[in-house]
Amino acid sequence: MRLLFVHSDHLEFETTTEAGAGLAETEDVPMEGRMEDCVTAFVSVEREDETDLDAVVENAADELRDVTGQLNTRKVVLYPYAHLSDDLASPDSAKTVLRDLQSELDADYDVLRAPFGWYKSFEVSCKGHPLSELSRHVTPDRTDGDAGSETADRAPS
Amino acid sequence: MRLLFVHSDHLEFETTTEAGAGLAETEDVPMEGRMEDCVTAFVSVEREDETDLDAVVENAADELRDVTGQLNTRKVVLYPYAHLSDDLASPDSAKTVLRDLQSELDADYDVLRAPFGWYKSFEVSCKGHPLSELSRHVTPDRTDGDAGSETADRAPS
Ligand SMILES: [Mg+2]
Repeated sequence: MRLLFVHSDHLEFETTTEAGAGLAETEDVPMEGRMEDCVTAFVSVEREDETDLDAVVENAADELRDVTGQLNTRKVVLYPYAHLSDDLASPDSAKTVLRDLQSELDADYDVLRAPFGWYKSFEVSCKGHPLSELSRHVTPDRTDGDAGSETADRAPS
Repeated sequence: MRLLFVHSDHLEFETTTEAGAGLAETEDVPMEGRMEDCVTAFVSVEREDETDLDAVVENAADELRDVTGQLNTRKVVLYPYAHLSDDLASPDSAKTVLRDLQSELDADYDVLRAPFGWYKSFEVSCKGHPLSELSRHVTPDRTDGDAGSETADRAPS
């Protein structure tokens, strides 16, 4: 899984058209939404994640807890985003991971999840401080500690 | 090179702090800017591009001409973005490519280039139609035609 975290003053989105027949989520997820002062997590679920979807959900939740802890926020947007990887998981796997990640976080976070399988208009802002954009590569590795993720903090360029 | 094109109602940015000593561009590039109704091109220059920087500039310009032709706009934001690749070029190579790409386009495009090597706040919108987000992998391949690029149009997920 590829994650791009953007510390945002706001994120808003609205679905426009379905991306493919039978692909688009329509239940239990809003067709539009807005959140203020949040971490926007752009998410690409990858083929390698399909070896253990539960593990990648757990490792992704760990990363989100780390990042939101550093940024001192409990507000998260989960935004499916195909453009962070060349090797995507199947749509069914991606939807499972996104739903399960939301469930994992719902108890102690305010979560806005954008629906999978839709073209969407959106607007996002980035606060611009040195930790306001972070990328992570999360794997299904179940080893303890940070083995299930690879930090990729980079100069912003 | 990894390119992510976002057809935008607007993009605006403002530099905040330098990312590293001696890394940040400070000349011939604005410290803040805004463009309306444009293609925002997020750009990661990669190590493989260093085999032939001129070729990758030419191939990237071809891609931009293709995409802006489809979207019927002559307004382009070049936005350096480290988070699209795991294997980045050196900062010097990246700066050369971004400057040369701007020069290549300046004759017939309205180009806003964001400076390399700065943390920046930004706000970007995406129009949300099916062609409003496109990713491309551009290489230094000099073969004629489209051999220097790999189309990666994806469902938006
Ligand atoms: Mg071409």
